Amino acid sequence: MSSIKKRMELLRERMKAEQIDYYLIPTADYHNSEYVSDYFKVREFLSGFTGSNGSLVISQKEAGLWTDGRYFIQAEKELEGSGIILFRMLEEGVPTIQEYLEKQMREGQTLGFDGRVVNSAYGKKLEQALKTKNIKFCYKKDLADSLWMDRPAIPAHPVMILPENICGQSVKEKLAQVRETMEQENCQAHIVSKLDDLMWLFNIRGGDVECNPVALSYGFFTMTECYLFLQKEAVSEELRKYAEEYGITLMDYNEIENFLQEFPYMDYQSRNTGNEQKIHILFDDKNVNYSLYRILQEKAELVNKENPTEKLKAKKNPVELAQMQEIYLKDSAAVTKFIYWLKKNIGKMEITEYSAAMYLDNLRKEMEGFLDLSFPTISGYKENAAMMHYEATAKDHKELKPEGMLLVDSGGQYVGGTTDVTRTIVLGEISQEVKEHFTAVAVGMLNLSNAHFLYGCTGRNLDILAREPLWNKGIDYKCGTGHGIGYILNVHEGPQNIRWRYSEDAKEAVLEEGMILSDEPGVYIEGSHGIRTENVIVVRKGEKNGDGQFMHFDTLTYVPIDLDAIDTAYMQPKDIERLNVYHKAVYEKISPLLEEEEREWLAEVTRPVS
Amino acid sequence: MSSIKKRMELLRERMKAEQIDYYLIPTADYHNSEYVSDYFKVREFLSGFTGSNGSLVISQKEAGLWTDGRYFIQAEKELEGSGIILFRMLEEGVPTIQEYLEKQMREGQTLGFDGRVVNSAYGKKLEQALKTKNIKFCYKKDLADSLWMDRPAIPAHPVMILPENICGQSVKEKLAQVRETMEQENCQAHIVSKLDDLMWLFNIRGGDVECNPVALSYGFFTMTECYLFLQKEAVSEELRKYAEEYGITLMDYNEIENFLQEFPYMDYQSRNTGNEQKIHILFDDKNVNYSLYRILQEKAELVNKENPTEKLKAKKNPVELAQMQEIYLKDSAAVTKFIYWLKKNIGKMEITEYSAAMYLDNLRKEMEGFLDLSFPTISGYKENAAMMHYEATAKDHKELKPEGMLLVDSGGQYVGGTTDVTRTIVLGEISQEVKEHFTAVAVGMLNLSNAHFLYGCTGRNLDILAREPLWNKGIDYKCGTGHGIGYILNVHEGPQNIRWRYSEDAKEAVLEEGMILSDEPGVYIEGSHGIRTENVIVVRKGEKNGDGQFMHFDTLTYVPIDLDAIDTAYMQPKDIERLNVYHKAVYEKISPLLEEEEREWLAEVTRPVS
Repeated sequence: MSSIKKRMELLRERMKAEQIDYYLIPTADYHNSEYVSDYFKVREFLSGFTGSNGSLVISQKEAGLWTDGRYFIQAEKELEGSGIILFRMLEEGVPTIQEYLEKQMREGQTLGFDGRVVNSAYGKKLEQALKTKNIKFCYKKDLADSLWMDRPAIPAHPVMILPENICGQSVKEKLAQVRETMEQENCQAHIVSKLDDLMWLFNIRGGDVECNPVALSYGFFTMTECYLFLQKEAVSEELRKYAEEYGITLMDYNEIENFLQEFPYMDYQSRNTGNEQKIHILFDDKNVNYSLYRILQEKAELVNKENPTEKLKAKKNPVELAQMQEIYLKDSAAVTKFIYWLKKNIGKMEITEYSAAMYLDNLRKEMEGFLDLSFPTISGYKENAAMMHYEATAKDHKELKPEGMLLVDSGGQYVGGTTDVTRTIVLGEISQEVKEHFTAVAVGMLNLSNAHFLYGCTGRNLDILAREPLWNKGIDYKCGTGHGIGYILNVHEGPQNIRWRYSEDAKEAVLEEGMILSDEPGVYIEGSHGIRTENVIVVRKGEKNGDGQFMHFDTLTYVPIDLDAIDTAYMQPKDIERLNVYHKAVYEKISPLLEEEEREWLAEVTRPVS
Repeated sequence: MSSIKKRMELLRERMKAEQIDYYLIPTADYHNSEYVSDYFKVREFLSGFTGSNGSLVISQKEAGLWTDGRYFIQAEKELEGSGIILFRMLEEGVPTIQEYLEKQMREGQTLGFDGRVVNSAYGKKLEQALKTKNIKFCYKKDLADSLWMDRPAIPAHPVMILPENICGQSVKEKLAQVRETMEQENCQAHIVSKLDDLMWLFNIRGGDVECNPVALSYGFFTMTECYLFLQKEAVSEELRKYAEEYGITLMDYNEIENFLQEFPYMDYQSRNTGNEQKIHILFDDKNVNYSLYRILQEKAELVNKENPTEKLKAKKNPVELAQMQEIYLKDSAAVTKFIYWLKKNIGKMEITEYSAAMYLDNLRKEMEGFLDLSFPTISGYKENAAMMHYEATAKDHKELKPEGMLLVDSGGQYVGGTTDVTRTIVLGEISQEVKEHFTAVAVGMLNLSNAHFLYGCTGRNLDILAREPLWNKGIDYKCGTGHGIGYILNVHEGPQNIRWRYSEDAKEAVLEEGMILSDEPGVYIEGSHGIRTENVIVVRKGEKNGDGQFMHFDTLTYVPIDLDAIDTAYMQPKDIERLNVYHKAVYEKISPLLEEEEREWLAEVTRPVS
């Protein structure tokens, strides 16, 4: 712990030298990515907290870390002894960072942050909140850089081109769709900074973020020109030719700020409309960083809208959907094989949380088209499973015994798609309470995946279907029920999701045909057990009649739900029927992909219950 | 129909004379009230459409009427032959009025409307939408006035003072709460135009709108002064004394515009803060009319927020809740007696939709503390029930026969509260399809009233609980599931409601303890049948634990749900149990209020089913 304290002390010295009173370190790269490469893990370096979401605020007298419900248990553990206060986001009475700064900062003080790792929406919000106190912003320096001696390099993996028959749509068509929106919004230019949007738009993939096949990049578009900013090291000769073919001008990633400073905006504007008004730039202020925003807002009129790519990408096209269906069957078979292996060998050989995860990871790695895991496999035994994003390591893990349950949340990146699945596996005796919780989770998961709803619904309308069986017992899980899932892209993708809470920041997206979502209710009892059952579902159109367009979900995931933890006493007949229907489909779809003895076992564990 | 065409022609002549190209007639009084007195029914006078919600737009070449799903069937019927086009709001491809005007109006044309019957939010929206076309606004004239010869007078009923032991809170306390919010919002003044908010705040009631015990009024507040604008005829000597006692300055209702023109804003501002900035006025732009807005926006800085009274009023205090519980039992007993009478006499005497409604209305009128109906009783037989807000009249009604079903939606205003209840009553043979629909409606209603949810949920999170049993069958009802209910006030009150659709205009209100809502799913099959089952529920706090504050509902309505239309084959065991639990409570609570033979019948119709 003393290394953390020392780092904080060094940072405080730097702050003094720069006359910065409060310094903010969110967890982000220059693109507001959810997961970031090690280079960007400044908050982890300084605080010791390893969760994927967290922001650190430091002053001379205090340091606080803000994180969300998924990480409360973990953060408490990791921050112990550091002197850093844990702020549990969304809990009653806990201030947001903005509220904290508003209260703590004194007239005329200076707030520092690296403007490249703060998105412009948040930067503007801070400006607004702190302007009555005349707070100065110092946003051009990354103070941590000079004190982080062995900081990893910025990654720059080669960029790969995906063939059109895998993407289902050409770059040309996609660019035309984007320009259509630019025209509708009366914008002459458009900047895209969101990495997965850029990958989708250009039919390329990278490897600059662990498990997320994205390349650090920016895109800048006019109605005729198209600039793609990539790191030099990422660009192959093949990519150069590809870019030329599609009229894409390749630029150096590190030149984005200079480019935006020097772009001839006025020329462009008058050339296009014949008047001297400022050029209009379509711009998503949630995803463009504050440093770029400060440049652009002087040069142009910014039209703040969600990137058109975001929704286009979310509605998977028929080629993408067919690929996803196929890859989910293969991925489900791998997970099913894993469960079989685990159940057969538990108590007979040494298996740990970590070695179990390795075994599953290897099953995926052997699959055709495997690129990467879609996130580090979560393998949590007994009470470890109560930490939603627990990660067992080679050094630090529990040994599995023939008792309790193992929660495994995992997925792969394949040429055919991105998978995500969670099963909680019974290894031996479990309590009646655990069975009750497990059954309620399964019922909730099936309630949602069997929903029928009118077009126009968003995840906020549907979330309660998964959550109600738990709310009826006075239990909640402190996270959304589902997230969007990318296609050979980020395992978390917007704009769609299944959540109940209203959030000013998170726009609600109507559930559109072809959107893919996870459906993953859970129970997390600190110090006791954690249960999550996650299927992935796709939005489909159903009947259209005088009452409107009805929608429903198809399921992509086919992995048995452990009947050893199901007690039908907690189910209604419709719940039992849904489980049996699901298990019948699991057997039909997965058994052809298994060995004989696995198949026999699968028949048994997907038997109808009553 | 020819009288409608003639009226439209006369209006078009007036429009020509005033150089108005498009004229908009919403349905509103000067306070954006949902229901309005006859004086304000200009749209009905001109179009012949009698529904409670609808807007007419007229140009020389076209006339269109916009209304919502509750009224599609009725509007189609009533507009027949008028030449007025029906625009079905929220249907796919149907433009909003704003979109229609944006498209139809030509550069430099003039849009006319009476600025007093258009709320300022909508007026501003129209300004925004039409500014690129340089549309002029003519908002100071009510064109219909001169051509409506026998227009009813503006009502001016005497204002009644409610005793504090009925209100549970004094005017002084309420004013202090309002001023607290003014202070938080840094506002030196506040205008309230919403009638039920004013009634609640001053512990008074009026009778200027049918079934809504409100008086036409305005309120204007500073931190020390309090002006209440009422029509002279409404003010008694007693009220004068009451006003004096509470420091309320009574003003003439018709003087509001002059008052706002001449109020010494700047004096007030500098007196209070010592600087020369404009005074800040707290102002709800949904409820203050456009004419007042145009005056105020020149004089002051308008801070657009929901009236603080709105939420204070919605969270019923313990006195109000106790009164409501008691009055709902008595009102439920009246409805139960009515059902008994109807079932006993159907086929034995002549009963019509209208006479049945009269019979029920009379049962209410005989009750102690009865003030008025809370809305005109809806009594719809067979296919008439498919029109959600059908009203049988003395002239135009169906005779009831011992077959099919009668839908009765009714309620009363009493000194102890405001009620609202719907039952659909089986009079004889009904089809299996009708039983299936009736059962799904009952299941949905009970699903919602039995919900458990975390604090923070709004109606948008819960709506699907009531709707899912119908959505599963590809059926929807084109209205919300529930509305807020006032206390001796409007039967529709905000901000709370149970709806699923996202609407930019309708803020979502978190369901707070003490809020009262209706729970009324339904099935409406045009030309065939209509079913609605409505209970009224109140939000209660439940368990608070580490996962948060859980909430649930208590039911206020205790009227049997017709078992003759229930088929338990369409129910899960939990649904059957909920119905039986409800019916047991109905018998226990209502039987003491009945005669012996009614009681015997009630025991039978509330028997447990399986």
